[in-house]
Amino acid sequence: MTVSDTGEFGLLARIVPRLGTSAATLLGPGDDAAVLSAADGRVVATTDLLLEGRHFRQDWSGPYDIGRKAAAQNLADVVAMGATPTGLLVGLGCPADTPLEWAEQFADGLRDEAALVGVAVVGGDMARFSSIVISVTALGELHGLPPVTRSGARAGDLVAVAGRLGWSAGGYAVLSRGFRTPRTLVAAHQRPEPPYACGPAAARLGATAMCDVSDGLVADLGHIATASGVRIDLDSRAFRISGQMSDAAQALGVDPLRWVLTGGEDHALAATFPAGTELPEPWKVVGRVAEGEGVLVDGSVYPHSGYDHFQR
Amino acid sequence: MTVSDTGEFGLLARIVPRLGTSAATLLGPGDDAAVLSAADGRVVATTDLLLEGRHFRQDWSGPYDIGRKAAAQNLADVVAMGATPTGLLVGLGCPADTPLEWAEQFADGLRDEAALVGVAVVGGDMARFSSIVISVTALGELHGLPPVTRSGARAGDLVAVAGRLGWSAGGYAVLSRGFRTPRTLVAAHQRPEPPYACGPAAARLGATAMCDVSDGLVADLGHIATASGVRIDLDSRAFRISGQMSDAAQALGVDPLRWVLTGGEDHALAATFPAGTELPEPWKVVGRVAEGEGVLVDGSVYPHSGYDHFQR
Repeated sequence: MTVSDTGEFGLLARIVPRLGTSAATLLGPGDDAAVLSAADGRVVATTDLLLEGRHFRQDWSGPYDIGRKAAAQNLADVVAMGATPTGLLVGLGCPADTPLEWAEQFADGLRDEAALVGVAVVGGDMARFSSIVISVTALGELHGLPPVTRSGARAGDLVAVAGRLGWSAGGYAVLSRGFRTPRTLVAAHQRPEPPYACGPAAARLGATAMCDVSDGLVADLGHIATASGVRIDLDSRAFRISGQMSDAAQALGVDPLRWVLTGGEDHALAATFPAGTELPEPWKVVGRVAEGEGVLVDGSVYPHSGYDHFQR
Repeated sequence: MTVSDTGEFGLLARIVPRLGTSAATLLGPGDDAAVLSAADGRVVATTDLLLEGRHFRQDWSGPYDIGRKAAAQNLADVVAMGATPTGLLVGLGCPADTPLEWAEQFADGLRDEAALVGVAVVGGDMARFSSIVISVTALGELHGLPPVTRSGARAGDLVAVAGRLGWSAGGYAVLSRGFRTPRTLVAAHQRPEPPYACGPAAARLGATAMCDVSDGLVADLGHIATASGVRIDLDSRAFRISGQMSDAAQALGVDPLRWVLTGGEDHALAATFPAGTELPEPWKVVGRVAEGEGVLVDGSVYPHSGYDHFQR
């Protein structure tokens, strides 16, 4: 059975019950719009497009993983503001012959990723299209704290990261060469695991700036450096590279540090904190904020860049 | 110059200054997420996809009109809850050879439509893709009133509409036959004019149910009838059909009432109100809520249906 056999409303009837519920949902799917709580009178909002062949490949990722990843990358943007997610809205364009099961598994992936942070899919839109296009909007609330922007880093601050770096890039490199192992890297590419709890925790710890790592650590810290008017110095020895990543990189003839410093899509969090902040696990200090501009790795400009969505 | 020449960040630098500002914007574009006001602790949220060849044709609509329409249809969903819009988030996928001017005019259209309700584009996403795909999310706030859902209509209520009905369908029919006139209908298809102020006003007037007309009046009132467990009786004599619409319909051999009753995309508002409610202009009573189910026109089931996004 395909999405065309059921029609839009039949499809909605199959999908909506799979989307979960949450305390923040005041009015869920089925009306012109949803209503979510925004307890302190402010709402955090972010949106991303995921386009077939551009952001995912169906031969590399199944619908469940695509749903997980689509939710994860937007929820990561919410927590990168120091906010707590409250819900997702999702648009799905897909061919008329898309199996109903594809749409159901995609919905299950969205639901299960959203459930990790206690939220649900509260609204959306579906339409027929020549390829699969997905839009996800994630909303969140700040619980009385100021948002942690990219512009607050100050000379002397610590630079710290939480979450995986380079795993998704390693998985992408492996898949690009036609391999399916090591599974940990491939799985990390198919389904990122952002360190959700670390975002609001960083806000409570007094983080001065934060972003999620979607374009690559050097590129994303570059955005913080520019917005804050500072330089960021990274110490490459601070990054632990797992044996599996080393082995895979060696097999492909790549420096694994390049995956760590320029790979996006793991949706780790990178933040700056006032010097002397006691950072709990899993935060790891990897550098310092200084006066100046740009990002230096061991004192030099790193020769590889991050991701530009129109130039690659 | 194309979007590929400038690159993602160059494109953002050109687009972001065009997006406007508003009182509700607490943190605008440039960070992981935006922050908007949600004054009474609740946020209304809705999202739509607009896909090239499916929801718009570039030979029928220019980028400015596409921007206007993309914003309008989402803002209409917000006001259909009785809410006041607070901001938009927009995703744009487009080919690498898209002229920079196309993206700028699209942004101008978004901005100008958003400005009609005093809001701005506060965030978004851009990516290269084989065709133009647009996602828009609109947010709003309720100012202490309950949301006006689809499920509150009660037998005895008045049924009223505000805004244009059938104009966009007439324009679509004209364009489909290769004509470009009458201009009023064509322009109505290219750029809907939702009666924004009527949404929050309906909430204050005590509307029991409301929706915007996106699939066609009979279809959309059908959603209210189903959600509310009632029947809706429409009186076709209540609909005023303009001379231009009559003439165009006659030229095409169509009953103009069909455009009025089944045409979507004008984003009029349809609402139910307790009997005896004094409805100011431009609300017009077009029927009554009764016990039962479905929508009847002059006592009969209307033989034409609305829009199903997977079956046409």
